[in-house]
Amino acid sequence: MKPSAIADTVLLTDLYQLNMLQAYYEARMTEPAVFEFFVRRLPDERNFLVAAGLEQVVSFLETLEFSDENLAWLRETGRFAELLLERLETFRFTGDVDAMPEGEVFFADEPILRVVASLPEAQLVETRIVNLLHFQSVIASKAARMRVTAPDMTLIDFGLRRAHGAEAGLLAARASFLAGFDGTATVEAGRRFGIPISGTIAHSFIQAHDDEVQAFTNFARSRPDNLVLLLDTYDTEAAARKVVMLAPKLADEGIAIYGVRLDSGDLVAHSKAVRAILDQGGLQSVRVLVSGGIEEHELARFVSEKAPVDGCGIGTSLTTSEDAPALDCAYKLQEYAGQPKRKLSEGKATWPGRKQVYRTCGPDGAMIEDALTLEGEVLPGDALMAPVMRKGTRVGDLPSLESIRNRTSANLERLPRALRSLDKAQPYPVHIAPPLRSLADALGTALRGDVSPVLR
Amino acid sequence: MKPSAIADTVLLTDLYQLNMLQAYYEARMTEPAVFEFFVRRLPDERNFLVAAGLEQVVSFLETLEFSDENLAWLRETGRFAELLLERLETFRFTGDVDAMPEGEVFFADEPILRVVASLPEAQLVETRIVNLLHFQSVIASKAARMRVTAPDMTLIDFGLRRAHGAEAGLLAARASFLAGFDGTATVEAGRRFGIPISGTIAHSFIQAHDDEVQAFTNFARSRPDNLVLLLDTYDTEAAARKVVMLAPKLADEGIAIYGVRLDSGDLVAHSKAVRAILDQGGLQSVRVLVSGGIEEHELARFVSEKAPVDGCGIGTSLTTSEDAPALDCAYKLQEYAGQPKRKLSEGKATWPGRKQVYRTCGPDGAMIEDALTLEGEVLPGDALMAPVMRKGTRVGDLPSLESIRNRTSANLERLPRALRSLDKAQPYPVHIAPPLRSLADALGTALRGDVSPVLR
Repeated sequence: MKPSAIADTVLLTDLYQLNMLQAYYEARMTEPAVFEFFVRRLPDERNFLVAAGLEQVVSFLETLEFSDENLAWLRETGRFAELLLERLETFRFTGDVDAMPEGEVFFADEPILRVVASLPEAQLVETRIVNLLHFQSVIASKAARMRVTAPDMTLIDFGLRRAHGAEAGLLAARASFLAGFDGTATVEAGRRFGIPISGTIAHSFIQAHDDEVQAFTNFARSRPDNLVLLLDTYDTEAAARKVVMLAPKLADEGIAIYGVRLDSGDLVAHSKAVRAILDQGGLQSVRVLVSGGIEEHELARFVSEKAPVDGCGIGTSLTTSEDAPALDCAYKLQEYAGQPKRKLSEGKATWPGRKQVYRTCGPDGAMIEDALTLEGEVLPGDALMAPVMRKGTRVGDLPSLESIRNRTSANLERLPRALRSLDKAQPYPVHIAPPLRSLADALGTALRGDVSPVLR
Repeated sequence: MKPSAIADTVLLTDLYQLNMLQAYYEARMTEPAVFEFFVRRLPDERNFLVAAGLEQVVSFLETLEFSDENLAWLRETGRFAELLLERLETFRFTGDVDAMPEGEVFFADEPILRVVASLPEAQLVETRIVNLLHFQSVIASKAARMRVTAPDMTLIDFGLRRAHGAEAGLLAARASFLAGFDGTATVEAGRRFGIPISGTIAHSFIQAHDDEVQAFTNFARSRPDNLVLLLDTYDTEAAARKVVMLAPKLADEGIAIYGVRLDSGDLVAHSKAVRAILDQGGLQSVRVLVSGGIEEHELARFVSEKAPVDGCGIGTSLTTSEDAPALDCAYKLQEYAGQPKRKLSEGKATWPGRKQVYRTCGPDGAMIEDALTLEGEVLPGDALMAPVMRKGTRVGDLPSLESIRNRTSANLERLPRALRSLDKAQPYPVHIAPPLRSLADALGTALRGDVSPVLR
């Protein structure tokens, strides 16, 4: 198993990072910098978010270096000073990382990752850190909504084909599994992450045969384990009746039908009709699986209309997070050379300094409120940010994907009921503790009043 | 330059492809199959689509093979018959591909790629072909909307950080460039595809300095070429006045300011205010560049309100195609062993057979209508599908990215005015030619009436 992401060339970065690095080295600005990654606001379609992607970030930071090929290309461009190129030759990430564990529930303004490193190191890694944390958190948050909506249904990721490229497909399989999905259709995600893989047949298989029952029979004989037959190529209910007629013949050969899949039309109506046909035919043990354009509102409809659906394959809506494909997130400088820093840009002002998040839960474990404060202040509740890397090396082993999945499941159990709704809920309370608010106010006043000594 | 996508392991596929392959080999179903990739319907937010991703598909097909490591892992899973594993050892794509060229405008039901190969070959490649064509066409279509809306503005892709993983970032840079963007901030996209790269500075650079003007000065001295200063870290107009005061000092050092960047607030109002400050300060040649949450409606506002914006950095809305992150597309079996095939699933019925698209344009070159017909039927207009691969090898060189970009630009010029609107337009006329309609009707009747000889 390769835990890393699919491609970690250090040139997966924005040009301005390299431009800034050159200026930092030339101005000898290499003191410690503190950056934090957080989401500015939740999309209307999300009442909570789930942190994911940390393992890929750690792997990226541990292995980060400029290859000879990279350096030669950068030199060829003629854009960069020799000083920068020399520094890049030996460039490594030697800083510290604190983070919320993967699978933690989080909200706007709460940091889920902090980097403390010399300014050039902490700056260069911005682009890929955001790229990795943002996407997996987007998918884990979407998958968690589905899991919470249909807690007892088998949910399988079917989304590689419409994911945004290869890495998106693989990391979506990972992020949805850790958020509670049961498996993926993506073979490479099984190999790379150990996620259970599953798959049935496509309409093309049925179509390639002159006869639907011949198609079912050929597939059953070739792949008798966990046999799932696809019913909707021509006429769903007619195909279900064919399954009933075929089942005894297959049973004679020792083949049991595990399930049937419906992929079009009104899935509530078809699942009920097919379930009735199967039951009347003595096939009570055959599962009804559905796919085709399913998202969490459709899952909610399955539940409310008591559709006899045992499992769902979910593709596009999951792996593109179709209703909210991006989060308004940022990786922002909070401190440099011991001085807290604050950005004041309209609508994008940040909370300065190194921060910690405390979460208070009730006696039953249910989440009550969070508090955002400066690191070092101790508040009631559980501190969510914990050390992950020190001096460029991970602090102990990261949790396995299975244990992250268990943690997420426990976290989702603790969600307030209102946040579990698919409708927009009152935001979960995140209090800004007084010391943090005071620091922000003081910096805001100081920075707005800034009169440049250079121009005086 | 490496023209291929970022990662082409053959295990980037759905498990069901391997399951079906086993059944096909066991049933000796290896006759020629014809699959076509098309979009079922356009999203409400799109009046036209732009084809992209063919180069990566061809590269994938040419290099497709199962490595020893892949085969060993597949064997270890215990899922597959020895017959399948043996066939996979020597598996190569040896089929034919016809396609619309990248940069072609297309509509619902029109195939943009056809694969003709033995059934197992044509089936296995489905997942990755869809993954590559879908994503780049999504991005090219989004980018083309922006280009059409702001024809005279410099547009730069800033979207790697919020793209869905590494490959999405790289391929979005490529797809947006071919659709008319002028460059990207992503360094690796410059190296890999030869796309012009550009970049400025981040707010962290300003914040890391105690003084904004000192930050401007340090950056100017380090990176004097194409110097762009970021104005909105604390107060946009105050920063613009600092630029005016600083410019003569920099000029004394031989440094010219290329532009300023605004990244927050009302960009129309700020661009006008900053333009006025710069002009009054004698800096008429300094360009105003903007970024921060820009999408095509904001571009339209820049144009209609005559905002003095010379260029835009566009991130999230572009690289996630935020308003329409997925297309309802499919890669469907149209013919097997010489027999045309049709899927009848509700809402997903397909047009059968090998198809060609003819486009009729007026004397001024403007597009008038398309016709979808069976290959071999000749209609007026230009045939859009052309040979790309024969027997697993490309037919001649694929066009360069620059020439695709020129072709796209010419195609966008030919778009009917109504389709260039950001509002939903009357759909562009795509006629189904009579021979195709007759075939579809005949197959529909035959398939609905299917009575299985196996069950008789």
